[in-house]
Amino acid sequence: MKNAIVASTSTLHGGTYLEYLLKTLEIHFKDADEILFIPFARPSGITHDEYTSRVQKAFNNIDKKVVGLHTFEDPTNAIKNAKAIFTGGGNTFLLVKQMYAYQVMAPLREILLNGTPYLGTSAGSNICGVTMQNTNDMPIVYPPSFKTLGIIPFNINAHYLDPDPTGTHMGETRETRIKEYHTQNTVPVVGLREGSWLDVKGDTITLCGNLTARIFEQGKEAREIDSGSSINF
Amino acid sequence: MKNAIVASTSTLHGGTYLEYLLKTLEIHFKDADEILFIPFARPSGITHDEYTSRVQKAFNNIDKKVVGLHTFEDPTNAIKNAKAIFTGGGNTFLLVKQMYAYQVMAPLREILLNGTPYLGTSAGSNICGVTMQNTNDMPIVYPPSFKTLGIIPFNINAHYLDPDPTGTHMGETRETRIKEYHTQNTVPVVGLREGSWLDVKGDTITLCGNLTARIFEQGKEAREIDSGSSINF
Repeated sequence: MKNAIVASTSTLHGGTYLEYLLKTLEIHFKDADEILFIPFARPSGITHDEYTSRVQKAFNNIDKKVVGLHTFEDPTNAIKNAKAIFTGGGNTFLLVKQMYAYQVMAPLREILLNGTPYLGTSAGSNICGVTMQNTNDMPIVYPPSFKTLGIIPFNINAHYLDPDPTGTHMGETRETRIKEYHTQNTVPVVGLREGSWLDVKGDTITLCGNLTARIFEQGKEAREIDSGSSINF
Repeated sequence: MKNAIVASTSTLHGGTYLEYLLKTLEIHFKDADEILFIPFARPSGITHDEYTSRVQKAFNNIDKKVVGLHTFEDPTNAIKNAKAIFTGGGNTFLLVKQMYAYQVMAPLREILLNGTPYLGTSAGSNICGVTMQNTNDMPIVYPPSFKTLGIIPFNINAHYLDPDPTGTHMGETRETRIKEYHTQNTVPVVGLREGSWLDVKGDTITLCGNLTARIFEQGKEAREIDSGSSINF
């Protein structure tokens, strides 16, 4: 049975890395001493080792050892043997390109469908969707496909931002971008605001955190759902 | 000799479509009665016909006829015979995918190198760069390549935005995104703020408008250049 936490962000403004999620993670990862970390998204371009150290520091608070996927000679096998997995944020294009290069997309999907506990934040949450096509990231590399894990039957827009009614900038709002997406695609999109996450338990997907989330479906008006709601299409 | 205007945006806050550029365009397009318009980027998902009408309305002010590329049976030939070309903004992924599908990337590059006057705004400017990899757009479709026209020897980040020092949103700043790009790529990037444009005359590229632009090169600190400066690397 799928068992995943799909979070909009790793860090709340004024908080430390993963701080707001630690209590939830203590329960989520209770049966795992060691967490396999996928560092490929490289936020701000930091190295895989630097990123893994940052994650270890956060997980010290709940006594978990963190091991970077980049340290294994056989990444596919490392995924298959993992007791728990965390994919951190950064650049989604880079993450997806590297996951295909390391041939870990398919085995990761398989173990997640079989119930290995998973945490994703930001880019690591985008890849839980059907495709990565609602990322906010810059296309700094060309992945072989936009298709991702598909462990949830919709896409994620992480760090969802409401339009600024006082703004003078003429770039598209997030809602406009997602509407443009729906001129070309049918997969629904969930806009997850910072501090929100999805709790995925089998086919039940529940919105958690203090905020509402925004749901976009092709040909329908966007709508808000409350925290605690199940997400179904 | 190349003769292009590469503008950050089509519309300034409080202005009408192309209004701030009309005096410049009157001179730029003085030898053309008719402008071939490439509507593929479809801002807000509007149709090619709707988009072409919007552009015609703006160009009525300087007595130019506008014809949409989508109305031609042979788009390659339409490009080759054009007296002037304008590519409008919208979604850069969609624009580039359609340009490859219509097989117009190569012939457009050729006529631009030969001096056909060109205007790009936003997505239509991004494609003037070596690649589209510094777009802010959402990857709503998968283009066969990120390579674009390369009529300037760097990439454009249109609608360039400075970091908001009072912001609490944890998504990446534009500068962070471009720095991440330079962990993977060597092509320089010019961040063009709204109201700025590049005047390309042969190999001389001049920053125009009231604002400075921000220059990003791999391994160097980002720097500002003044309006009126030439851009060289």
